Amino acid sequence: MSKDIEAVLGQLAAGRKLALERLFALIRIPSISTDPAHFPDCEHAADWCANELRLIGFKASVRKTKGRPMVVGSRAPAKPSRPHVLFYGHYDVQPVDPLALWSHPPFEPRLSEDKANGTVIVGRGAADDKGQLLTFLEACRAWIQATGDLPVSVTVLLEGEEESGSPSLEPFLEANRAELTRDLALVCDSGQWDKSTPAICTMLRGLAFTELVVQGPSRDLHSGMYGGAALNPIRALAHILAGLHDGAGRVQIAGFYDEVAELPADQREQWRTLGFNAKAFLGDVGLATQAGEMDRSVLELLWSRPTAEINGIWGGYTGPGSKTVIPAEASAKLSFRLVANQDSEKVLEAFKAFVADRLLPDAKAVFRDSRGSRAVSFDTGSRPLQAAAAALAAEWGKPAALVGSGGSIPIVGAFKRLLGMDSLLIGFGLDDDRIHSPNEKYNVSSFEGGARSWARILEALAT
Amino acid sequence: MSKDIEAVLGQLAAGRKLALERLFALIRIPSISTDPAHFPDCEHAADWCANELRLIGFKASVRKTKGRPMVVGSRAPAKPSRPHVLFYGHYDVQPVDPLALWSHPPFEPRLSEDKANGTVIVGRGAADDKGQLLTFLEACRAWIQATGDLPVSVTVLLEGEEESGSPSLEPFLEANRAELTRDLALVCDSGQWDKSTPAICTMLRGLAFTELVVQGPSRDLHSGMYGGAALNPIRALAHILAGLHDGAGRVQIAGFYDEVAELPADQREQWRTLGFNAKAFLGDVGLATQAGEMDRSVLELLWSRPTAEINGIWGGYTGPGSKTVIPAEASAKLSFRLVANQDSEKVLEAFKAFVADRLLPDAKAVFRDSRGSRAVSFDTGSRPLQAAAAALAAEWGKPAALVGSGGSIPIVGAFKRLLGMDSLLIGFGLDDDRIHSPNEKYNVSSFEGGARSWARILEALAT
Repeated sequence: MSKDIEAVLGQLAAGRKLALERLFALIRIPSISTDPAHFPDCEHAADWCANELRLIGFKASVRKTKGRPMVVGSRAPAKPSRPHVLFYGHYDVQPVDPLALWSHPPFEPRLSEDKANGTVIVGRGAADDKGQLLTFLEACRAWIQATGDLPVSVTVLLEGEEESGSPSLEPFLEANRAELTRDLALVCDSGQWDKSTPAICTMLRGLAFTELVVQGPSRDLHSGMYGGAALNPIRALAHILAGLHDGAGRVQIAGFYDEVAELPADQREQWRTLGFNAKAFLGDVGLATQAGEMDRSVLELLWSRPTAEINGIWGGYTGPGSKTVIPAEASAKLSFRLVANQDSEKVLEAFKAFVADRLLPDAKAVFRDSRGSRAVSFDTGSRPLQAAAAALAAEWGKPAALVGSGGSIPIVGAFKRLLGMDSLLIGFGLDDDRIHSPNEKYNVSSFEGGARSWARILEALAT
Repeated sequence: MSKDIEAVLGQLAAGRKLALERLFALIRIPSISTDPAHFPDCEHAADWCANELRLIGFKASVRKTKGRPMVVGSRAPAKPSRPHVLFYGHYDVQPVDPLALWSHPPFEPRLSEDKANGTVIVGRGAADDKGQLLTFLEACRAWIQATGDLPVSVTVLLEGEEESGSPSLEPFLEANRAELTRDLALVCDSGQWDKSTPAICTMLRGLAFTELVVQGPSRDLHSGMYGGAALNPIRALAHILAGLHDGAGRVQIAGFYDEVAELPADQREQWRTLGFNAKAFLGDVGLATQAGEMDRSVLELLWSRPTAEINGIWGGYTGPGSKTVIPAEASAKLSFRLVANQDSEKVLEAFKAFVADRLLPDAKAVFRDSRGSRAVSFDTGSRPLQAAAAALAAEWGKPAALVGSGGSIPIVGAFKRLLGMDSLLIGFGLDDDRIHSPNEKYNVSSFEGGARSWARILEALAT
């Protein structure tokens, strides 16, 4: 271990309490990017991040977009050094509903003791992505405080629309190509293998999203006056959605699997050796049976197979008591996780054709808010990936797992497509972090181990 | 025409404006009985009705129940007369959502010109049942004002829970059996055949209601982290609901049609001669194809066939934007219209078995708020029914249609079962009244013709 990194890790240990206070301060800003009521909070969070960057010696600014603002900051070491990395994170968070299931208000973070995880930080965004992005900023802070310098040049890009489809991101990358195209992107929005094993994510599923509205009668009808004779759009919607999967969990949209490659035998073997416990994974959330394709392993389903999910459904009367209504329309939000080679627009078109095929007489289908991103994968033999893997191994005392991820991080595809830039996906989240759910948490060991890991990776990347 | 009825009809004509003002005043009270926030409004509406009864010379009181209160009033003629009738109506109304589809606030009634109907009263409850119940009170008022007396003894019972399943009604009937058991019940909660043809309803469908919750994972999950592997309860719910009907619209619950009698040939012929225009009926609400059993007429579907309808559905994220969640549960409200001989408890039990059969692995079904009422039918040759039919024919210049109704009026079954009392179902609503929907209306011709009709019926019933 170099003298430098020893000092940096010492600095992180000394500053633990203040680092946690900074994370709490950021969580307290309810920066929900899908909800217009919280747009001012998103601006507040952006200002907060830019200010923190300035405090550790970055040149930083908040940049306007058509949506939530971007934060950009940069700092070069005194002695010019390669590479110049671009760090990406997002300061926006998911909505908090159902609020009633939170043990305390989601934007009042608390430390809590957890049998499996030790001390955890509970609050919306604790893991996704406020805790994660601060692991990197804390590593930079410690480097500067301990040594007066960074080992590599760093540009930081923090987005505020990751949880709402990133509509401003691509135009922003295109408009700021020169400033943002660096040798490598570091993205901290993924997970560890388990709480004591680091991971680098080398495959990410893509995502296609749409909202389907099934329309029937021209107005809400009384089910006594019309029931039996008039089309019920909820029935029509259920008829469509129930056909999405066959009995074995296979998606029934025509051509859905056409572009999906079979997993190479060596990849399958590597995943097998990870010793993933599918029974425990499902058992943790009260389930016993895999719901997707029955002839695949759960890890394969999560990392390398596409999905069709209904994320929300609503129609008719949903208040207390009963109302004997046949509603004029019923709606569902759907998303499709995509794997390499699948094109989101093609999948959404195929879904529209599927819906058209299953429409009951008198039903009309309207699609809203359709958008998507492709899956991506990286060369596991590249020099930066190997250097980062070695740094992680040094920190955690065991090799980093090279894994896939079921979630999509659209930025990674955009970096590659628009800026020709590869990414290193290293994060410290855990499967039980409850991101997007009530009582989201981030292990203190993830937060602190994450910062220590980045400190080591920054040095390892310097050539 | 007797001198008396001539004077009574003259009195109704002279008091038109004031009668309309009274209806407006009652509509202004937002007495939504399914919504706890409106319980005080229900009490207000009950007080208002009792006070109106007192103003026209009834002894009236508001009676407490475990739910919304009952209003009971009575008045006997100076010269003892037969029969003693019990009039039933309800002062509570349906919820108003979706509020955005109302052309003006639902509890600020307005007169509006309507091409098909002339002047109409628009507001929640204008037809169901505030306008309807006031037709009877206005007839009583006119009799008393014009002649100083009523032709028969009248007890009035006004309920405040008709739109929320009438939980207090049966205990109230049982506790007040002596006061409420009269020679005949008059129920004003049904419709005319069309805007110029009166009707008496001689068949009413029953109703069974339940709420189904399908539970899956123990908490909301991230669709990227779990999608493909974990059961999605919305998918499981859609799978159940989509199986409720076959392609020809026939309900697939085992035994659902076992107790359903075929329509007698003469009834079918009488309905055929009504000249019902199914195409126009469906076309009025933007539909072209009958959704129920394809081998039955629309009128048969509405009046004499049972149904299974989904009145509401909800689960997952339903707010603006997207949230890639797999929810822990998804819910639906269902109701079944029943015909003669079907037992609501038996139907609900059969539905539970149907759900159990179609549950995907790991899904659990919970049923809430299950309740129901039987269908009823009456002898069309009875003396009071014939007398009322003659009075209606005199008022409207054409015979009253003897019809069925798709809706259920549980009180009618309760009167028969608990008090041994038959009912005469006469109402002045129209198919296009939009009851239970935004912009509910009641024709002024229904309101005024209804009051005139009751004035004549009261005389016709006196022996």
